[in-house]
Amino acid sequence: MLIKEKVDQAVEVLREKGIDCWITFVRESAVSRDPALDFLLAGDVTWHTAIIISASGNSWVICGEYDRRTVEDIGAYGQVIGFVQGIREPFLAVMRDLDPRVIAINYSIGSEICDGLTHGMYLILTGLLGEAGLDGRVISAEPVVSAIRERKTGAELECIRRAIQSTEEIFARVARYIAPGMTEKEIAAFMQAEVAKAGLEYAWDPGHCPAVFTGPDTAGAHYGPTDRRVEPGHVLNMDFGVKHQGYCADLQRTFYVLRPGESEAPQEVRQGFEAIVAAIEASRLAMKPGRQGVEIDAVARTLLTGAGYAEFPHALGHQVGRFAHDGTALLGPAWEKYAARPMMPLEPGMVFTLEPRLTVPGRGTVTIEEMVALNDTGAEYLSSPQKEPLLVGRTPPSGSK
Amino acid sequence: MLIKEKVDQAVEVLREKGIDCWITFVRESAVSRDPALDFLLAGDVTWHTAIIISASGNSWVICGEYDRRTVEDIGAYGQVIGFVQGIREPFLAVMRDLDPRVIAINYSIGSEICDGLTHGMYLILTGLLGEAGLDGRVISAEPVVSAIRERKTGAELECIRRAIQSTEEIFARVARYIAPGMTEKEIAAFMQAEVAKAGLEYAWDPGHCPAVFTGPDTAGAHYGPTDRRVEPGHVLNMDFGVKHQGYCADLQRTFYVLRPGESEAPQEVRQGFEAIVAAIEASRLAMKPGRQGVEIDAVARTLLTGAGYAEFPHALGHQVGRFAHDGTALLGPAWEKYAARPMMPLEPGMVFTLEPRLTVPGRGTVTIEEMVALNDTGAEYLSSPQKEPLLVGRTPPSGSK
Repeated sequence: MLIKEKVDQAVEVLREKGIDCWITFVRESAVSRDPALDFLLAGDVTWHTAIIISASGNSWVICGEYDRRTVEDIGAYGQVIGFVQGIREPFLAVMRDLDPRVIAINYSIGSEICDGLTHGMYLILTGLLGEAGLDGRVISAEPVVSAIRERKTGAELECIRRAIQSTEEIFARVARYIAPGMTEKEIAAFMQAEVAKAGLEYAWDPGHCPAVFTGPDTAGAHYGPTDRRVEPGHVLNMDFGVKHQGYCADLQRTFYVLRPGESEAPQEVRQGFEAIVAAIEASRLAMKPGRQGVEIDAVARTLLTGAGYAEFPHALGHQVGRFAHDGTALLGPAWEKYAARPMMPLEPGMVFTLEPRLTVPGRGTVTIEEMVALNDTGAEYLSSPQKEPLLVGRTPPSGSK
Repeated sequence: MLIKEKVDQAVEVLREKGIDCWITFVRESAVSRDPALDFLLAGDVTWHTAIIISASGNSWVICGEYDRRTVEDIGAYGQVIGFVQGIREPFLAVMRDLDPRVIAINYSIGSEICDGLTHGMYLILTGLLGEAGLDGRVISAEPVVSAIRERKTGAELECIRRAIQSTEEIFARVARYIAPGMTEKEIAAFMQAEVAKAGLEYAWDPGHCPAVFTGPDTAGAHYGPTDRRVEPGHVLNMDFGVKHQGYCADLQRTFYVLRPGESEAPQEVRQGFEAIVAAIEASRLAMKPGRQGVEIDAVARTLLTGAGYAEFPHALGHQVGRFAHDGTALLGPAWEKYAARPMMPLEPGMVFTLEPRLTVPGRGTVTIEEMVALNDTGAEYLSSPQKEPLLVGRTPPSGSK
């Protein structure tokens, strides 16, 4: 159903972009998987497989004979053609007949999500297109693959909302669990037990999902939990997400560990926290269809440097979908590693994180990651935005034990 | 530990093949994963990452700053260099200094397992090498990647043996469970419950692991289980495997469903079964280091056509490792889709399946898949070879209920 919806969407995008035909070309997808396949096939294929969608609304899958019935069962393609010895003949026949002027294929310099065609397969594909007399008609399918990944349908947004809800529930539970003296590993183990109990899947590598960072001397993002212990006076942050029907949540929350006698975080922690909240809200309000990610990133970046903090060493936010890091357009600075991604215009249906960070010396890293969705006029929160540091080690109210 | 072992093996292979340097170049490996990474990194990386191993025994990983400590912790690399804005400068510095004459990179026309470099990343990498003054020095890393995947160490063989043992145990249990009237889906559900109970991982897509085919009118290999029911007089076969520490088993077993009054399979089923057993044993005995897979495939293929059966429509056997379909050298016919793989010489340490098949009209498909490992002089079974059809619906011995 979702695949049929996405194949239909692809036809619309091809027309919009003036592209005659889009080819996804894969083999042994269990070994090396073009990320576009999630929207095109239900499982893996073994032999060379060409998924051909034309702007006229026709579609073909040419695949190994043993994969044919599985592909037919999807019910999204006009014709499914099986072969035994090789893809060459059926592929040449379809392409000669179709004779497209512009052929989009899945490679991209700037966007890994649109770069699923391996170089060996590129050589095979362009060789075959040459044989079919279609030399020099190939372009990057980045505009097609990006649009399909980025323009979330209602069903896709609903999956993301439910993934966020499950993630927030586990954050709420761990907030009641954490106590001074616990290690990062113990906290992560508690959350992973909750994931297992609920039968959920992780949004990324469970080696650092959750990532747990406590105190001023941590490894920084993307590192697994350590034996470092939760200490009074320190800031603790976590990065965590689960999936719902293949769609991810990706959220960060910040905790403060109270010292004996404290009932709230000290002023410098509160100030840092408020700056992060303000940076997120200001950048959300700046998000409109047509604006560039680099402009949105700059809103948060300059707000924080203006408040006296160092620049955060990463993009303000990335898209979320079937991967925690998804899509091409990025809310980021114009740095080399981001290529053209920060310059792409925002579109309705895109789902982004907003995740600035700053350091409070001697305390730790303050960072919140919210998720927002673009609509026709602006961006709305999908997550329930964190407005206060979560306090650890609160004295139980008098009278209770 | 395993990574260190494999990095050391890579240095040996580079010397043996006369290659100065091997570069694995990836980004967002959770999105698009070069299969060579399993031997080089412990988890995923986010930003552009170059893993550079030289024949001199030096090695570098250049990666995003946030991935640096995770990579350092592997303890397999001489130098781990982190960057914030982009990989260009540190990469150019290392490569200019190294100045290799021959640089192997991960693309291959003929072997998907060696084709992990995407075309976009190929364009970036060759652009950077050009800037470093190293134009025109690039070759396919297929000989390096193949050797590392194919030359199994003792520790790797032990993992495969244990995966086979767990797979055989589940086959033994399902053999006692199957009864006439059950559907393919019920049989698969029983096996998947056993997998879950034992906390095992599937060797391939659980949508067809196990694959269950009963009777003469099935979809053929790689199709999920259906509502088709087990019927007396039919042949049933299954394709199934689990993993142990990331290493796969891949086995097929054939069952015969007794008719009332029968105590063994009818003659035409037994003859077909004996032909398959003989084809496997004859091809195993033909396997020697230095021989080509196409020769081994021909042993089984001609034995079966000589016995009056149709040619099986696939290769006799593939390698097994971290994927159920692994490695480059293949025991297959010289068909287009197999490219040069059937012509590659066999080497000690390779692990292969042997899986001929034939049809018994009106009964079903007879197919066995065994696993063998090459040593210095020949091939030995890793699995316990099936010598009789497994009989379903046997009358309980008199006196029992």
